[in-house]
Amino acid sequence: MQDLLDSVVDGCREEWQAGRTATYIPELAKARADAVGASVFDLSSGGCSSGDFDYRFTMQSVSKVLSLSLALSVCGEDEVFSRVGMDPLADSFNSIMRLEMDAPHRPHNPLINSGAIVVLSLLPYRDAEERFAAVSDMASRMTGNRSMSVNEAVFRSERDTAARNRSLAWFLKSVGNLDGDVDDILDTYFRQCSLEADCRDLAVLGATLAADGMNPVTGEQVVPPRVAEITRAIMATCGMYNGSGEFAVTVGIPAKSGVGGGISAAVRGRMGIGTCGPALDGKGNSVAGMRILQRLSEELRLRIY
Amino acid sequence: MQDLLDSVVDGCREEWQAGRTATYIPELAKARADAVGASVFDLSSGGCSSGDFDYRFTMQSVSKVLSLSLALSVCGEDEVFSRVGMDPLADSFNSIMRLEMDAPHRPHNPLINSGAIVVLSLLPYRDAEERFAAVSDMASRMTGNRSMSVNEAVFRSERDTAARNRSLAWFLKSVGNLDGDVDDILDTYFRQCSLEADCRDLAVLGATLAADGMNPVTGEQVVPPRVAEITRAIMATCGMYNGSGEFAVTVGIPAKSGVGGGISAAVRGRMGIGTCGPALDGKGNSVAGMRILQRLSEELRLRIY
Amino acid sequence: MQDLLDSVVDGCREEWQAGRTATYIPELAKARADAVGASVFDLSSGGCSSGDFDYRFTMQSVSKVLSLSLALSVCGEDEVFSRVGMDPLADSFNSIMRLEMDAPHRPHNPLINSGAIVVLSLLPYRDAEERFAAVSDMASRMTGNRSMSVNEAVFRSERDTAARNRSLAWFLKSVGNLDGDVDDILDTYFRQCSLEADCRDLAVLGATLAADGMNPVTGEQVVPPRVAEITRAIMATCGMYNGSGEFAVTVGIPAKSGVGGGISAAVRGRMGIGTCGPALDGKGNSVAGMRILQRLSEELRLRIY
Amino acid sequence: MQDLLDSVVDGCREEWQAGRTATYIPELAKARADAVGASVFDLSSGGCSSGDFDYRFTMQSVSKVLSLSLALSVCGEDEVFSRVGMDPLADSFNSIMRLEMDAPHRPHNPLINSGAIVVLSLLPYRDAEERFAAVSDMASRMTGNRSMSVNEAVFRSERDTAARNRSLAWFLKSVGNLDGDVDDILDTYFRQCSLEADCRDLAVLGATLAADGMNPVTGEQVVPPRVAEITRAIMATCGMYNGSGEFAVTVGIPAKSGVGGGISAAVRGRMGIGTCGPALDGKGNSVAGMRILQRLSEELRLRIY
Repeated sequence: MQDLLDSVVDGCREEWQAGRTATYIPELAKARADAVGASVFDLSSGGCSSGDFDYRFTMQSVSKVLSLSLALSVCGEDEVFSRVGMDPLADSFNSIMRLEMDAPHRPHNPLINSGAIVVLSLLPYRDAEERFAAVSDMASRMTGNRSMSVNEAVFRSERDTAARNRSLAWFLKSVGNLDGDVDDILDTYFRQCSLEADCRDLAVLGATLAADGMNPVTGEQVVPPRVAEITRAIMATCGMYNGSGEFAVTVGIPAKSGVGGGISAAVRGRMGIGTCGPALDGKGNSVAGMRILQRLSEELRLRIY
Repeated sequence: MQDLLDSVVDGCREEWQAGRTATYIPELAKARADAVGASVFDLSSGGCSSGDFDYRFTMQSVSKVLSLSLALSVCGEDEVFSRVGMDPLADSFNSIMRLEMDAPHRPHNPLINSGAIVVLSLLPYRDAEERFAAVSDMASRMTGNRSMSVNEAVFRSERDTAARNRSLAWFLKSVGNLDGDVDDILDTYFRQCSLEADCRDLAVLGATLAADGMNPVTGEQVVPPRVAEITRAIMATCGMYNGSGEFAVTVGIPAKSGVGGGISAAVRGRMGIGTCGPALDGKGNSVAGMRILQRLSEELRLRIY
Repeated sequence: MQDLLDSVVDGCREEWQAGRTATYIPELAKARADAVGASVFDLSSGGCSSGDFDYRFTMQSVSKVLSLSLALSVCGEDEVFSRVGMDPLADSFNSIMRLEMDAPHRPHNPLINSGAIVVLSLLPYRDAEERFAAVSDMASRMTGNRSMSVNEAVFRSERDTAARNRSLAWFLKSVGNLDGDVDDILDTYFRQCSLEADCRDLAVLGATLAADGMNPVTGEQVVPPRVAEITRAIMATCGMYNGSGEFAVTVGIPAKSGVGGGISAAVRGRMGIGTCGPALDGKGNSVAGMRILQRLSEELRLRIY
Repeated sequence: MQDLLDSVVDGCREEWQAGRTATYIPELAKARADAVGASVFDLSSGGCSSGDFDYRFTMQSVSKVLSLSLALSVCGEDEVFSRVGMDPLADSFNSIMRLEMDAPHRPHNPLINSGAIVVLSLLPYRDAEERFAAVSDMASRMTGNRSMSVNEAVFRSERDTAARNRSLAWFLKSVGNLDGDVDDILDTYFRQCSLEADCRDLAVLGATLAADGMNPVTGEQVVPPRVAEITRAIMATCGMYNGSGEFAVTVGIPAKSGVGGGISAAVRGRMGIGTCGPALDGKGNSVAGMRILQRLSEELRLRIY
């Protein structure tokens, strides 16, 4: 596996040149565009890593998997899906248009920005601090990394430049689809997006989902099997934003990307994979990461379809 | 004129029953739905009033005429129209959809909410207080009423429930079309919307625009003739929100409505008219007010088309 | 007047260079991009012309004024406006989007393509031939030109390349808003768009509307005053497509443009103006024509707002 | 398996009451709303059927799987996906809005109506007859049923009431994304939608895709494995129209529905399933069929996520 992974990561080293780092948050623009790495956590044989696997980046939208799993566990799927849909859409992750267009004005799925914000609002915690503590705890338990922390520079940058997310949240508020204090909820959202991880963390996160919610490193059952199952299904249809359909054709495994450059993939019963590569395509997905996943999917016959 | 006005207002007394007071701002819902009144300020013969002409209501969107006139005077038409369009649209006054859909994501005209917010942002004042002082001064000079004031209950209600306007403002911010501090600009917006007026104030306001910017009561040239001319033209195509085309066919004079129930109309060289009637149609226009204007337009042959 | 008109047309001779002839219909692309002319028909003093006033072009959307006037006369305003709106919109003249978006899926106004197609469908004639005979007769009576004819090359080009108009018509059919045979109705539509006219024809057409429906050349009352009044109002808010608001600010008179390069303007009680200039701006309006109208509006103080 | 299938179909007998037969094509409204049946074709153990498994219905959108497989085989995936996307969308199967909104105005995926029409246009056949012969041949080879035929009454009804599909096709033509004769291509489209099948046909069709393109009944390799793989992936993200995301969560297998009431599902390496139930939900998917598939997915652990 190590040889295969090295060969795949090496072969994808230059893919990043087709992409660009996210620029809408100043701190993200500072990411190393040419960092390319991957980790695999195989449920039978354990982990291996290659390339810039210890490059640290912020989770960004990958963190939506954490808050979704948390909300499904805490609130139950009925409550969650009464407030947010499960269907993919052709709009970009921060689009607001369809929220106005389609009554009842609820987000189409929990992995776009508006959906993730609603998901956070459902959590029964007192304030931003308590709410973030729960998300952060979920991050630690899913990744097995007890020392995860927020990149404060990114958090501040995120918070200070998040006009679009504020617009989404206030729109949701205006149509009665966001309970609670807008700034307080957004604070948790920005913090979870700013959680730092590396490829190994995302590989174990994927492996935990692949193992029906049991972290294969710590042995802890982090979320019930049904929660892992739902999360994988939604990753499959909505995880790569409006590039999810193409990703299903070219790669064919459930995965969630983030504009920090990470992708976490979960192949049920087999493995989790974490990749990094901050250079993104036009839809916000890591160019090198997708290419690595495509190569691994082919070599290891991971495709689920 | 007094007899005619009495007869028209009397004849429209029951029209309000086809409408409803605005409910999205709690304080507005408390308005007297059955208040119906009108004032005419004729440039030759002076003013007369009828019905509930002294009923006080908040100006709401009628105030957009004030801030537009102010910005045109202070910044010039080139600057204003480099940041906001001049074209009507089919969407409702607080719609966000087209802001996302149409690059360069600038508001289609200055009389919808997003446009009015951008207009305020262009004013070269230091903060909300200074900015509102200028708008308020414009209100006094346009209406000739030196004792206009903000309805504080409505202002607070407006500010605390203005999720949609916050969403619009943050969206504009996110696409780089709103300079300055969002909350600060919105503060002015909510305050100007909460300015109280009665039919007489709106009649003189209309008469000032009708007299090419010269207040016929005070004799002051409040804005240059070209500013009054532009404002009248934009009122004609955009003043009644997405009901402006129908209003042109049925009434045929430049006018601006507000969800507080007021309408101010300006017939160049002839007169200004102010009406009140807090019961609104589905597009946010005063039902009784439109009917009164239609009757007056027919009786006095005011139609400009 | 002749001197003024010569001076204005001369001064606008080079304006065409900022525009381009319509290309979506091959025959239209063959128009003389640099043809620039104008005619004025003053209700007191009669007509005068300048520049390429005898250049012949197809009426295109200017013909929508004919079919609208005809339908208002024959069917009545209630029936017409139960099937088509009266409100301007921000979309281009051949846009389909809002037809799907906004129930009850009726065209927003009679001067966009979908609206004009619905208007034609309301006319109580047996077939395309009879229907076109009525429109053509209206053209002759409105312009006073008894020898108007269809440019057959443009008609065929129009019919053979009118995919978007077919799409609009079939969409209307699919939502139950188009009675009758689609191809048959479109045949009339393409024919009326292909009617040839010159500036003098459009000036008299405008003058007929300006004179409340009485053709000032022939003395015939072509349509009732109310029909002329409605038509002028809709020209004012919708006549220049999605550039109508800007045209109201810069020119300020009711007018209807066509992608053949013509514009017909109607100033109530004063005059009709016809201009030609096949080079168009991005919204489909004649660049030179708009500039001529702007200059004439300023010089003759025609602005209605 | 027979017992399980009987029990599942019996248990879902009354589910149809929550749905309604399609009404937009008059002939479809005549379908037996309460017909409920299913067939399973297991790649190891062969077929079994239950309920109204021999009820015949038209394939409608299920046929899009045939034309997509055919085009992928004949034209190659590069050509197909240069003209149609692979991504799911939130709009209904016959929506036109996004075709206008999103340059380059190509259909988002091959399983919505506009996409299927484009796919047919890519096939290198001379005319409607030859093109349909190829699709029909693909149907026979995929289902192993050599006597499939078109329901002529549905075909005529389809053709005569297909205003929306005509609108879609003409729109595609207008933006240069549909080569060939519109009516000719639509003729094939209506014919393939009118192909009659029963649950057994759809089960074998699904089994052929599940067996990487080899029909398990006839032993023929109908399409290359890669074509089957792509088709399954697109069925998974786009097969149930804008209900595909929810179907992934609740059922979790690649499937394609049709408004005739059929669904064909393909579980790689295991089985194909065909269901029928003409009563549809609001998105156009068979209510009873989805419920049967959900039960089978749970009982047989078919979920792929």
